[in-house]
Amino acid sequence: MNHDSDVIVVGAGFAGLSAARALAAAGATVTVLEARDRVGGRTENVEIDGGEVVEVGGQWIGPSQDRIAALAAAVGVETFPTHAEGSNLLRLDDRLRRYSGTIPRLGPLVLLDIGRTLRKLNRLSEAIDPEAPWQATRAQRLDAISFAAWIERTMVTSTAKRLLRVAGRTIWGAEPEELSLLHVAFYLRSAGSFEMLTDVEGGAQQDRFVGGPGAVCGRVAEALGDGLVLDAAVERLEQSGEGVIARARDGLELAARRAIVAVPPPLTAAIDFRPTLPAARRQLAQRMPQGWLIKTTAIYPEPFWRADGLSGEALNEHGPVTTTFDNSPPGGSPGALVGFVGGRDARAFARLGASERRAAVLDCFASLFGPRARAAERYIERDWAGERWSGGGPVCNFAPGGWSAYGDLLREPVGLVHWAGTETATSWMGYIDGAVSSGERAAREALAAL
Amino acid sequence: MNHDSDVIVVGAGFAGLSAARALAAAGATVTVLEARDRVGGRTENVEIDGGEVVEVGGQWIGPSQDRIAALAAAVGVETFPTHAEGSNLLRLDDRLRRYSGTIPRLGPLVLLDIGRTLRKLNRLSEAIDPEAPWQATRAQRLDAISFAAWIERTMVTSTAKRLLRVAGRTIWGAEPEELSLLHVAFYLRSAGSFEMLTDVEGGAQQDRFVGGPGAVCGRVAEALGDGLVLDAAVERLEQSGEGVIARARDGLELAARRAIVAVPPPLTAAIDFRPTLPAARRQLAQRMPQGWLIKTTAIYPEPFWRADGLSGEALNEHGPVTTTFDNSPPGGSPGALVGFVGGRDARAFARLGASERRAAVLDCFASLFGPRARAAERYIERDWAGERWSGGGPVCNFAPGGWSAYGDLLREPVGLVHWAGTETATSWMGYIDGAVSSGERAAREALAAL
Repeated sequence: MNHDSDVIVVGAGFAGLSAARALAAAGATVTVLEARDRVGGRTENVEIDGGEVVEVGGQWIGPSQDRIAALAAAVGVETFPTHAEGSNLLRLDDRLRRYSGTIPRLGPLVLLDIGRTLRKLNRLSEAIDPEAPWQATRAQRLDAISFAAWIERTMVTSTAKRLLRVAGRTIWGAEPEELSLLHVAFYLRSAGSFEMLTDVEGGAQQDRFVGGPGAVCGRVAEALGDGLVLDAAVERLEQSGEGVIARARDGLELAARRAIVAVPPPLTAAIDFRPTLPAARRQLAQRMPQGWLIKTTAIYPEPFWRADGLSGEALNEHGPVTTTFDNSPPGGSPGALVGFVGGRDARAFARLGASERRAAVLDCFASLFGPRARAAERYIERDWAGERWSGGGPVCNFAPGGWSAYGDLLREPVGLVHWAGTETATSWMGYIDGAVSSGERAAREALAAL
Repeated sequence: MNHDSDVIVVGAGFAGLSAARALAAAGATVTVLEARDRVGGRTENVEIDGGEVVEVGGQWIGPSQDRIAALAAAVGVETFPTHAEGSNLLRLDDRLRRYSGTIPRLGPLVLLDIGRTLRKLNRLSEAIDPEAPWQATRAQRLDAISFAAWIERTMVTSTAKRLLRVAGRTIWGAEPEELSLLHVAFYLRSAGSFEMLTDVEGGAQQDRFVGGPGAVCGRVAEALGDGLVLDAAVERLEQSGEGVIARARDGLELAARRAIVAVPPPLTAAIDFRPTLPAARRQLAQRMPQGWLIKTTAIYPEPFWRADGLSGEALNEHGPVTTTFDNSPPGGSPGALVGFVGGRDARAFARLGASERRAAVLDCFASLFGPRARAAERYIERDWAGERWSGGGPVCNFAPGGWSAYGDLLREPVGLVHWAGTETATSWMGYIDGAVSSGERAAREALAAL
């Protein structure tokens, strides 16, 4: 077999690009095959007036996200803090509350309930080994129940339960019914704590990239030159003793010594692996559904909420948009509000027509930030579940039983095929950082075997 | 667009074949495209000496399974009773117990626990509308918890819990962690009761087909003549205002007015639908994983257990084989024992080498039926999760949250595409009967629209 390169990487999201970059840095030759006409996977820039961009997919970087921080620094992309000055908003029971810091003004019982619940969740997560959550002492028991069942038996106030459900729609794009408690515990462990997932300052939403995540992956892609092929969905991946052969659209065939597949687990079902993947690996791919997350953005002449002393961050019990942030460019002009629609809200939202969706989002923004929010100059949305080459977002989640039965296979190579993607990360699974570290890990595996 | 036929059917399992038969009977022209080199889907005959066959996939027919009964009668295939004379066996705590009828000899507490649990489950199921389980009064609550969590809080004795878990491995090919309680309740409702699922006489295992299920689908296939194309995996399904175009391997392209897709939901991910399927439909396909069920058969010169007064039916707590039946041909010669390996046992079993698997199964049979069981003339197995065009078996199951969020889409056409397959059945989901009725229902939909 004549090898066109040492390694073929399937998918040019942050995982695939990071794998390719690490391989190239070690002197290996690599070809990245990407189904879309762009790189970035579940991250994407959209250009707006004035040469600025808004991020319509994964976008933030926070403390302890060392791998994406190193990557951004290496390609010369700077970060800037997410705008967080001013009061946050909480809309609950049709009442709008302003609050400062991370704790909204709620009744003492509700606050006690939330505090107690988060401490319990964090304690559960601390007992988990992120390398092998299925081996936790209580893994079988944590994996036997849904997060919803745990909430029901642990939490006391209906208000606190509703808040946690609403927060989960943005974190996982899913309802608590769909999540294994072990998955939730692992997810917190892989980020550090519940607060690391939800906070702006000191948490996962702390900073943004100047030029968006597209600036980072654009430069990584550029450095790959001809080693990156767009519009090249891999239809077939064949392996033999001599190597792997990837067949992409329109008859493009490439041979290599090893392959790294850096796509979300459910999308591996669209590749004709030869020989067929082991039964257990295919069962895994059926047991890790993508969440459903829709990201909406409204552009305004200026971030008018700032003058009202508002940060732009809100949690809104009344959908469709349940979470918002100020997403204006670094200079603060124009103003941009980002709103997330997730889980069951996403399904209802996706049924509406385009103009109804726009109106529903702007109504939501207006219920939080006042009537000026209706006068958006531009409305942008991205439904990640409607994207063929993502199938959902922000992350694939295990339902009960999945982690303990199949979790050990997430990173287990199949012959000459290695697996990357944020779902295979042990740190910051579901985040750009997890994607980067997974790609680097898969590259190390492949390099060691070349 | 020149239509090659009125309807294209994707998949020649019992669902696709039944759809095609109903369409042809109504005067429509139809082409069935099947990925494999055989029909039958998750059913299959294997020939043994003497012109007999054993069934290595779905095989039984029971009371109230009217659609498969009508189909078998229409093509002239007779049925015969599953051998059930003699005592059944229960192996539990390393003790082997013989019993007659459906109730094993267990302690009174255990029997009470089982009886109470099954009554509760049956009562839950009776409240479900099989046409719309997501609309049950308690649907949201039933769908919020795993079957495992329900077992834990409902059942009292560890013995009874273990028995139910073991039984579920054959019924669903899954562990109770993986199943929504609403799914379990619906499944019982669609069959009638728990006992209908597990019983031989009066239940789903009551009768078998002379010549196996292959005799039935073979005759249906024969009648389709050139309307059936084997080795024709559909890679792309394109729809426009004018009709559908299916592209199969090697450039075969066929146009029709409508399409019926009769494959298990997860396998729809391997078809390039154009335009892309709606996001909600793709989310559904990610949320209905196949169970894992391996069917093993040992052939003996005669059914020696009958002379010992045994029926051949056993429930065995100690895997890998947890359920057995006498599966000898109608005349009782040669003798055949069938054993099911499901759920977590299946994964462990699939890791063994071929000779180890054979030895493990025959050891299991010997622990139940005595040392003669080791002297098998032939050993046959089929791992349905290893079959590319099934991806598991016996059925795709919803984890918590799935039914209430996406169940309403199971039969909802997408433009010119209708959906069939046992997973879309309202009666006997997971069984051949459900496959047949689903195909007939999809054919009625397509006919009404032609």
